[in-house]
Amino acid sequence: MRNINVLVKNLGNGIKNIKINDPKTYNSLSFATLKSLLNTFKKLDKDSSTKVIILEGVGKGFSAGHNLKEVRSLKKRSKYLKLFNLCSKVMIQIVEGRKPVIAKVHGAAYAAGCQLVASCDLAYSTNDSMFATPGVNIGLFCSTPMVAVSRKVTRKKMMKMLLTGEPIKANYAKEIGLINDYYSKSKLNSEVLKVAKTIASKSNLTIKIGKQAFYKQLEMPLRKAYSYTSKMMTLNMMAMDAKEGISAFLEKRKPKWKNK
Amino acid sequence: MRNINVLVKNLGNGIKNIKINDPKTYNSLSFATLKSLLNTFKKLDKDSSTKVIILEGVGKGFSAGHNLKEVRSLKKRSKYLKLFNLCSKVMIQIVEGRKPVIAKVHGAAYAAGCQLVASCDLAYSTNDSMFATPGVNIGLFCSTPMVAVSRKVTRKKMMKMLLTGEPIKANYAKEIGLINDYYSKSKLNSEVLKVAKTIASKSNLTIKIGKQAFYKQLEMPLRKAYSYTSKMMTLNMMAMDAKEGISAFLEKRKPKWKNK
Amino acid sequence: MRNINVLVKNLGNGIKNIKINDPKTYNSLSFATLKSLLNTFKKLDKDSSTKVIILEGVGKGFSAGHNLKEVRSLKKRSKYLKLFNLCSKVMIQIVEGRKPVIAKVHGAAYAAGCQLVASCDLAYSTNDSMFATPGVNIGLFCSTPMVAVSRKVTRKKMMKMLLTGEPIKANYAKEIGLINDYYSKSKLNSEVLKVAKTIASKSNLTIKIGKQAFYKQLEMPLRKAYSYTSKMMTLNMMAMDAKEGISAFLEKRKPKWKNK
Repeated sequence: MRNINVLVKNLGNGIKNIKINDPKTYNSLSFATLKSLLNTFKKLDKDSSTKVIILEGVGKGFSAGHNLKEVRSLKKRSKYLKLFNLCSKVMIQIVEGRKPVIAKVHGAAYAAGCQLVASCDLAYSTNDSMFATPGVNIGLFCSTPMVAVSRKVTRKKMMKMLLTGEPIKANYAKEIGLINDYYSKSKLNSEVLKVAKTIASKSNLTIKIGKQAFYKQLEMPLRKAYSYTSKMMTLNMMAMDAKEGISAFLEKRKPKWKNK
Repeated sequence: MRNINVLVKNLGNGIKNIKINDPKTYNSLSFATLKSLLNTFKKLDKDSSTKVIILEGVGKGFSAGHNLKEVRSLKKRSKYLKLFNLCSKVMIQIVEGRKPVIAKVHGAAYAAGCQLVASCDLAYSTNDSMFATPGVNIGLFCSTPMVAVSRKVTRKKMMKMLLTGEPIKANYAKEIGLINDYYSKSKLNSEVLKVAKTIASKSNLTIKIGKQAFYKQLEMPLRKAYSYTSKMMTLNMMAMDAKEGISAFLEKRKPKWKNK
Repeated sequence: MRNINVLVKNLGNGIKNIKINDPKTYNSLSFATLKSLLNTFKKLDKDSSTKVIILEGVGKGFSAGHNLKEVRSLKKRSKYLKLFNLCSKVMIQIVEGRKPVIAKVHGAAYAAGCQLVASCDLAYSTNDSMFATPGVNIGLFCSTPMVAVSRKVTRKKMMKMLLTGEPIKANYAKEIGLINDYYSKSKLNSEVLKVAKTIASKSNLTIKIGKQAFYKQLEMPLRKAYSYTSKMMTLNMMAMDAKEGISAFLEKRKPKWKNK
C-alpha cells in the first residue's frame, strides 16, 4: 500500500522521521492520512532498525486536526464512527507500540492534532507553537482528543481548554505537562535530535519492555502494578543486555548491546 | 421546597449565580444548606435556559466546610453517615451534571468548602484566598474532601495539606492545579464573567455531551475510553449543532446554535 | 532478627528516624537491607509510640538503588523475581502502613532509591540532591521504580526520565511533584523536623484512618470513593478524638487526644 500524505525518512542512528505531508489542509487528519499514519507506525514498530520515531508536520504547522470538509461530507453515523475509531487506533498504536515516539511541533497542534502530541511519549515545540482542543467552537466537543490530553494534564487546566476552546502557548503547555520543553525555531531540530540520539543509544529490547510496561502499569492498582512490573524486570534481567549493561557498569566500560 | 441559605440569581446570557448565604457560620455546609444546594444544582441542571453556573459565598469568604456545632450534636452513627453521604451527593451532582460550574472564591475555602471548589469544573479566586483540608486539627481527617482534591492535585502536595492541616495560598493553589487562576478582588468578578460568557456562547448540547464524557472517560482504561468517546463524538456529530458549526466554520460565519 | 544496614533512632515526640546504613555501597538496596527495612517499617507500624517516620541515608547520599554486584550474582530467574518482589513489598508497606513516612534526601536517590522517595508520603531534599531512574543505561529499565514515580509525576516528565536515564535536580523534582520542597544542607534537618512535629501533634488514630483511606480511594471510581470515605469519616467521627477535637475547637482550647 502506498502512503498518502505521510513521508518517512531515515535520519541515521536508528532514528526515523515521520512527516505528515498535507500542508494545503494544515496536515488535517483525513481518512487517507490516518490510514497512512497507522500503517507507517505499525511498519516501523516491526522494523528492527528503527529505535526512535520523530513525528512532525510539513508546512505552516503540526496539524489542525480532522479534515472538516471531509467530516461534513460523511453524513452517515456509521462513517463517523469509522473515522473516530480509526483515529483512536492511530493514537493507541503510538501508546502501545514498542518504539518511543517524539512529537516535534511547530505552528498549531489543534484538536486531533493536539491529541497526537499528547499521545506521543515525548513532545517538544517551538516557542510560538499553539495547542488547543477547540471543538466546542464548531459544536463538536473534543471528546476523543481529551482522552489523550487529560491523561497528561491536570483536570482543571484541561477543562478550561475544552470548555472555552481557547489555545494555549508553548510555555503554558510545558507548565501543565502537555509537552516536555520548547525551543527557538533554530534550535528545536537539534534539541529533538539530541534526545532521540540519547534514547537510540540504549538497548532496543530494554526500551521496548519498559515503554510497553509503563502505560500498562498506570492502569493497574498498586499491588497489581508491582506484581506485573516485577515480572517484567525479571524478564528484562534474564535477557543478555541487562547482564552486559550491569557488567559494563561494574567494569567501568561502555556496554555493547545485543539488541541495538 | 424553599431553599435555605442558598440564593439563585440570573446574570443573563444563560449564566446563573448560586450564592451560599449563611455568613454567620462562614457559609458552613449544614444539612439544610447541603439539601438546598443539591436541589438547586438539580433544578438548574434540568433548566434549558441555564448554560453555566457560578458558585460563590456571601460575606467574608467562600465556605468553612461542615457546621461543627451541628456535627457535634448529631451523635449517632447513622446521622453522620447521612450527613457525609448528602455532602457527597452534592459533589457528585456537580461533577456528573451537564452544566459547567465555576467556583468564584474569596476568603477561605476550607474542608468541605475546599472540596466544593475542587469539585467544580473551573475555579477562580482572589489573590488572598486560602484553601485547606484542616480536619486533622480537630481529629477528623478530611477523608471525603480528599476525594475531590486528590483528583486535581498531585499526591505529595495533597498529602502535605492533609497531614499538616495547613492552609495554602491562591498562587500555590494555582500552581498545583486546585484553581485555574486568581485575580485582585476588584477584577475577579469580571474575569469570571468573561469565562462564563465564553462558555455560554457555545452549543448547550455540545457542552453537555462533552462535560459528562470528560469525567466518565477519566475512570476508564485507554482502549475503553477511546471506544466510549468515539461513540459520544458520533452522537455529537449526528446532532444539528455540529453540522451547523462545521458549516459556519467552513463558510467563515458565526454559527447559529439550535441548542442555545 | 537483627537489622542489617538499618539504624533506628528515637527523635522524641513520637518521631522515629530510620537510617539506611551501608555507605560503602551508597546505601544500595540489597536483599539484606530490603529485609531489614521491611521488618523495621512493619515493627514501627505496630508500635503505638511511633507517630511519624523520617527515612534517610548514611554517608554521601540517600540510596543508589539495587546492589548491582549482588544482582549480577543472582543469575536465576526465581532469585530475580524474589528480589523485585521483596523490594515491592517494602514500597507497598510504606504506602499501606498507618504511619506517615517522610523521606529526607541528600546526594543521590537513584533507581530503587528514587522509588523509595516517591513511595514516601512526603519528601524533602537538599538543594543539590539528584533523582534519576537510570536503569536504561545498564539495559535494565526502571520498571518497578516507575510504578511509584509515575503515580506522583505527570507522564511526559516521567517518560523523559525513564527513556534517557538522565538525572533531575531538586528544584525540578519539586516542580513535577516528586518531592515537596528542598532546602540548604544546613536547614534540611530542622525543616523536616518541623513538619514531623506538626504531624506528630495530631491524633494518631485520625492520621492512621486518613493515610490509609487516601491511597485506597485514589484507586476507586468517584462514586465508590465517596461511599468508602463517607464510611471512614463516620468511623473517625464515632471515635473519641474527633469529638474532643471539635469540642476543643468550639471552646477555643487545645484538644487532648486519647490516641496520642
